[in-house]
Amino acid sequence: MTDEQYMTRAIELAWRGRFTTMPNPNVGCVIVNKGKIVGEGWHHYRGLPHAEINALRMAGDQAKGSTVYVTLEPCSHYGHMAPCCNALIDAGVTRVVAAIQDPNPQVAGGGLYRLQQAGIEVKHGICIDAAERLNRGFLKRMRTGFPFIQLKLAASIDGRTAMANGESQWITSCAARRDVQILRAQSSAILTSAITVLADDPLLTVRWQELDHTVCQYLDKHHLRQPVRMIIDTQGRITSKNRLIKQPGETWLIRTKTYRQDWPKNVIEMVLPKCNRTVDLITLMLMLGQCEINSVLVEAGASLSGALLSAELIDELIVYLAPKLLGSDARSLCVLPGLEHLSDVRSLSFNNVCMIGKDLRVTLNVR
Amino acid sequence: MTDEQYMTRAIELAWRGRFTTMPNPNVGCVIVNKGKIVGEGWHHYRGLPHAEINALRMAGDQAKGSTVYVTLEPCSHYGHMAPCCNALIDAGVTRVVAAIQDPNPQVAGGGLYRLQQAGIEVKHGICIDAAERLNRGFLKRMRTGFPFIQLKLAASIDGRTAMANGESQWITSCAARRDVQILRAQSSAILTSAITVLADDPLLTVRWQELDHTVCQYLDKHHLRQPVRMIIDTQGRITSKNRLIKQPGETWLIRTKTYRQDWPKNVIEMVLPKCNRTVDLITLMLMLGQCEINSVLVEAGASLSGALLSAELIDELIVYLAPKLLGSDARSLCVLPGLEHLSDVRSLSFNNVCMIGKDLRVTLNVR
Repeated sequence: MTDEQYMTRAIELAWRGRFTTMPNPNVGCVIVNKGKIVGEGWHHYRGLPHAEINALRMAGDQAKGSTVYVTLEPCSHYGHMAPCCNALIDAGVTRVVAAIQDPNPQVAGGGLYRLQQAGIEVKHGICIDAAERLNRGFLKRMRTGFPFIQLKLAASIDGRTAMANGESQWITSCAARRDVQILRAQSSAILTSAITVLADDPLLTVRWQELDHTVCQYLDKHHLRQPVRMIIDTQGRITSKNRLIKQPGETWLIRTKTYRQDWPKNVIEMVLPKCNRTVDLITLMLMLGQCEINSVLVEAGASLSGALLSAELIDELIVYLAPKLLGSDARSLCVLPGLEHLSDVRSLSFNNVCMIGKDLRVTLNVR
Repeated sequence: MTDEQYMTRAIELAWRGRFTTMPNPNVGCVIVNKGKIVGEGWHHYRGLPHAEINALRMAGDQAKGSTVYVTLEPCSHYGHMAPCCNALIDAGVTRVVAAIQDPNPQVAGGGLYRLQQAGIEVKHGICIDAAERLNRGFLKRMRTGFPFIQLKLAASIDGRTAMANGESQWITSCAARRDVQILRAQSSAILTSAITVLADDPLLTVRWQELDHTVCQYLDKHHLRQPVRMIIDTQGRITSKNRLIKQPGETWLIRTKTYRQDWPKNVIEMVLPKCNRTVDLITLMLMLGQCEINSVLVEAGASLSGALLSAELIDELIVYLAPKLLGSDARSLCVLPGLEHLSDVRSLSFNNVCMIGKDLRVTLNVR
């Protein structure tokens, strides 16, 4: 087997952590000795051992003289754990292959350098695209300070999200809504606006029973993590009567001033500067990055969706298109003020297209 | 090889006529003797021999004792040609397998009956779906009197066809526009409204040089057929200054009264009853059926598209979606008056989804 094939296996293992590792990255590791896989591991949760440690434990004595394939450069700093570099050196491995370097300023090449200094043969830069996809949120946050931001929309084939009277439940099928549960489970946070909360009174939670069995395979009910619910609420209209306040997990109310209310412990008011009748969205996203939010799933109405698109904050657009036509009186997908000429319209690109039940899911790269 | 395999070949041959046979159906024929294909044929143009005759010519003496696979019941009536049944009987074939019966009231089982009476073993009802797809227009016209009606739309992913100022050239890519050329080449007629003609002054022609090489393989430049251009023009606003009037092929102006103008020979004014500020669309379609129009491609704006959808006249919807967002001020895909509740919205179904260049083409069954 080639380096690429072992690394592909390591990437496969790393994906198993996608619902649980945040704010840490997803990492997978394969240890090979004399052409045989002797150890495999992946990172499960922050606070539990890294992928390399899990793989070394499985390999035991066979780690000596082995090649270690790891999807991200091994860490060289003391975090919740002793550095993985030390463990690899101590185990006597002879070669380490990392898919990509870790842009975390506490690592950033230091891990590979450390291993090399200890006489270990080091290689990196294989299966780069797949390794990047594994940690789009973590990598973007480390490199730019911003989280990876996905905008989820659901509409009819003529781009309408609700009837003129606001009726919108349900345009897309049950299968599409279950698919959104997976998106939520993979996100650090869900962002919406008070308008949406007041209109639909949504829960904005991940529901174990609505998740696919392919997800449940590596995510037991006990470890189900709720993404942080973030509601932009400049006018202080969200009250403890809204259903999401009582849900498990944290709710952050993003406001331009504090409104006195005795919130439960898991509800936090955050005050941000105002900008164009809402909060300053760029400041908001930078703040989320500082709060170790790797990825944000936006599930909002036409105004907030449009404002985020106009501010060029969206990385990926996921649109569920139902095989229906609602007509020109129905409500629009997004408001994009100031767009007058076709030459001002940005060209996106289709990244993935697939059927989800009776609906079509299209994923577009916005950058 | 099985009956299904030979029939699949016959269907493959039949498709070669799709740009040229109308108003006749597309038909393919394979003649097999002692497990060997001895004759193949397909129908090219009205007035030229039918598929069976072409295949019999190729088979020559080897037709004697053979099995004949034909995608549509052989004809038993005198049209432009002597009936194919006679030729098959005269050639001494022993077995005829037809995919489907011909619903043409002049045939309608009569062909198969005639063959059976002559002592030929007859079978029908194999590869039915594929044989139906081959002649959606012809079969619908024979069964109902209406042509098969496709509505082509092009929009951004948020369902917008033009900027607020009307700017729409071009939302979709060059590849999508070339794909539309193939749709046109396969259609008996193109239907639009005076509003569209006055706004864009389109040619509404098939341009040989814009067709794909897969099309040109069975359609030489000399035989390029222009679909009839049909413009609903209740206010008599189309004049000889509009570019499409001077194009090769026929133009039919669908009006509610005649406007005196000395039109060129290939321009015809048709008067139809008025209904809801336009012509009576059901009467129009029945009239087209009577004029032997098998299939109509609608390329119109939001009003006519919506009116045809509301009248439940559309069989298939083809939407080219560009990876762009134009926002809520931009123009709508279709006007569907009177649609107030989600429960009133018809559910369509996705039939086919594929990338055409940078755009997505989605095909939906409307019935």
